[in-house]
Amino acid sequence: MALSEFELIERYFRRCGAPRADVRLGVGDDAALLDCPPGAVLAAAVDTLVEGVHFPRGCRADSIGHRALAVNLSDLAAMGARPAWALLALTLPSAEERWLGEFTAGFAALARTHQVALVGGDTTHGPLTVTVTLLGHVPAGTALRRSGAAAGDALFVSGTPGDAAAGLALEQGRLPAPGKTEYLRERFLFPTPRVTLGERLREYASGCIDVSDGLLADALKLAEASGCGLELSAASLPLSQPLRALGAERALQFALGGGDDYELCFTVPAQRLERLRAALPPGQWGYTRIGTMRAEPGARVMGEEGELSLPAGGYDHFSNP
Amino acid sequence: MALSEFELIERYFRRCGAPRADVRLGVGDDAALLDCPPGAVLAAAVDTLVEGVHFPRGCRADSIGHRALAVNLSDLAAMGARPAWALLALTLPSAEERWLGEFTAGFAALARTHQVALVGGDTTHGPLTVTVTLLGHVPAGTALRRSGAAAGDALFVSGTPGDAAAGLALEQGRLPAPGKTEYLRERFLFPTPRVTLGERLREYASGCIDVSDGLLADALKLAEASGCGLELSAASLPLSQPLRALGAERALQFALGGGDDYELCFTVPAQRLERLRAALPPGQWGYTRIGTMRAEPGARVMGEEGELSLPAGGYDHFSNP
Repeated sequence: MALSEFELIERYFRRCGAPRADVRLGVGDDAALLDCPPGAVLAAAVDTLVEGVHFPRGCRADSIGHRALAVNLSDLAAMGARPAWALLALTLPSAEERWLGEFTAGFAALARTHQVALVGGDTTHGPLTVTVTLLGHVPAGTALRRSGAAAGDALFVSGTPGDAAAGLALEQGRLPAPGKTEYLRERFLFPTPRVTLGERLREYASGCIDVSDGLLADALKLAEASGCGLELSAASLPLSQPLRALGAERALQFALGGGDDYELCFTVPAQRLERLRAALPPGQWGYTRIGTMRAEPGARVMGEEGELSLPAGGYDHFSNP
Repeated sequence: MALSEFELIERYFRRCGAPRADVRLGVGDDAALLDCPPGAVLAAAVDTLVEGVHFPRGCRADSIGHRALAVNLSDLAAMGARPAWALLALTLPSAEERWLGEFTAGFAALARTHQVALVGGDTTHGPLTVTVTLLGHVPAGTALRRSGAAAGDALFVSGTPGDAAAGLALEQGRLPAPGKTEYLRERFLFPTPRVTLGERLREYASGCIDVSDGLLADALKLAEASGCGLELSAASLPLSQPLRALGAERALQFALGGGDDYELCFTVPAQRLERLRAALPPGQWGYTRIGTMRAEPGARVMGEEGELSLPAGGYDHFSNP
C-alpha cells in the first residue's frame, strides 16, 4: 500500500469538496489562489483533531473527516461568515486506502453541503492528527463577535446541547446504554454546524460563540468578552428525549458541561426579539432562549429552588490531564 | 505547569508576530477577520512539521518555530505572493513554558521580518506537531505557477542547495563532521525563505517552485507541471564551501537529492534573461543558472563525461518508510 504523496493527492484530494468559480488555482501548486469578493472581509479559522484526544482510537474515518470540517464550519458560523475554501493538513501513521476513502467521503459530503472547495493541504507521516483551516467571507462590518453582548440581552442556544458529549461517553463505554442511544452517538460522530443560522443571525444577534467546550463555559466566554455576566434557567435548557432518558441530573450535566456540540450560543437585544422570532421562527430554525445577560460578571444557573452550584465544566486541553 | 488554553494564548500567542492594520480581528474569537486588498488574489498554503519526521526529537524549539513559518513563507514566495497572516495549530505533549517561549520567539522573529501577523490558531494535546497556514496576496493575474515553463527557458536556483540536508545529517550524527559544520546545521535549523526574490521574480520568471523535497525532484515537478523536461549541469550547481568540504560526490548528492532547502527553483524565457540580470544581479540576489528546460520529458544531469545516472532522490512521505 505504498502510495506516493502525488498519488494520494490525485486519488483522494484533488476533487474533494465542491467546485467553485472563485478558485483560480486549487490543490497541486505551492499555494492556492482564491478570489475574495469585493466588499467582503476574509474570515479564517483553524482546528486540530488528535486521535485519542478529540476522537477515540479506531473511530469511524468518515466521522473524523466530517468532524474535522464541521468544527471549523461551526467557527465560521459563529462569526456569521459564509464558508468557501478549506486546506487540509493530514498526519497519518500509514496511507491506508480504505481509511482514506472513508475519511475523504465524510469530509467531501459535508464540504459539498456547504459549497466548500478543498484548495490545498499537506499529507505527512506521523500520529493521526487532522488540521483543517477554513476560509470564508462576510460583508464588511457585519461579522458577529463574542464581544457584542450587553446586560439585558436574551441568551439563546441552537439545537439540543449535551447530546454529543453523551454520545462520546457511550462510544467510549463510559456510560450504561439504556435503550436507544444511536441518536446520541450520531450527534457526536456527525455534528451539524449551524452555518445558515449563523449567516441569518448577523441581522439580529449582538454576540455569538460556537459551543465546543461545553455550553456553560462557552456562554461564559461570550459574557467575559462582552464585559458582562449571564443567568441561565436550567428548566429552559432544550434537552433531547434520548438525553433525558439518561436521567435528569446526568442530562443537565451533559447539557451544561459536555463539549463537542458545535451549536451556536448567541445573544439578542430585547428590541430585536420580535423581529428575530418573525424572521427565524424558533421551532423551524431550532433555537431556544435559555437565559439573559446581566451586568454582574460570572454565570448563574437557576434551578427550581434557586441557584445551582455547578463547576464551569469547560474542557481545557492542558489543565485537565 | 498547568497553563489553561486561555493563559497559553494570552502569554504566548496574542502578540506573536507583526501588528498589521488589515487585521480587523485577530487571536481570541472563533475566527479571524482580515482585509484582503482590492485587486489582489488571496494566496493560501499549509504545511505540517511532525517531531521525528521533519525535525529530530529534542530539536531546538526556536528552530521549530522558525521552520514551521519558513516552509510556508517559501510556498508563498514560490507563487510570488506577499505573506500577511498566519494561523498556528500546535499539538503539544505538555505546555512547558520554557519550550513555548523559545518556540514563539523563533516564530515571531521570522514573522516580524516578513510583516506577518499571527491571527488565529488552536492548541491541542498530543504528539508534537506544528501546522501553520499562511495567507498572503498577489496582484491578480501575476502569480507564479509551476506550470508556466517552456522548452528553452533557463533554469535557476537560489542559494546553495544541499546545505540543509547535510546539516540535518550532521544534527542526527549520520555524517562524520570534518572541521566546521556550524554553517550547515544553521541552514537546516534556520532556513531563509526567499520572499522578496519571489515577489520580484513575478516580472521575469515563467515558472517557479520551492525546493523542499530536493532540487532534482522539485525541478522535475516544475517540468512535469509545464509539460516539458530539463537538463541540468552538475558543474554549474552552486555548492557552498562547507558542503564541498564533505567531498565532491556527497556534496552533489545532497545538492540534488537532499531536502529542506526552501530555495526557489525557477525558469526564465531567453528574451527576459538580460532584463532579469540587470534588475536582479545574480551575485547580489543569490541565484544561479543551473540548466535549461527541454521538450523531452524527464531530467538529465550532465557531468564532465556525459549524463550522470542518479536516483530522483525526492523525499516521499509514504513510499519511503
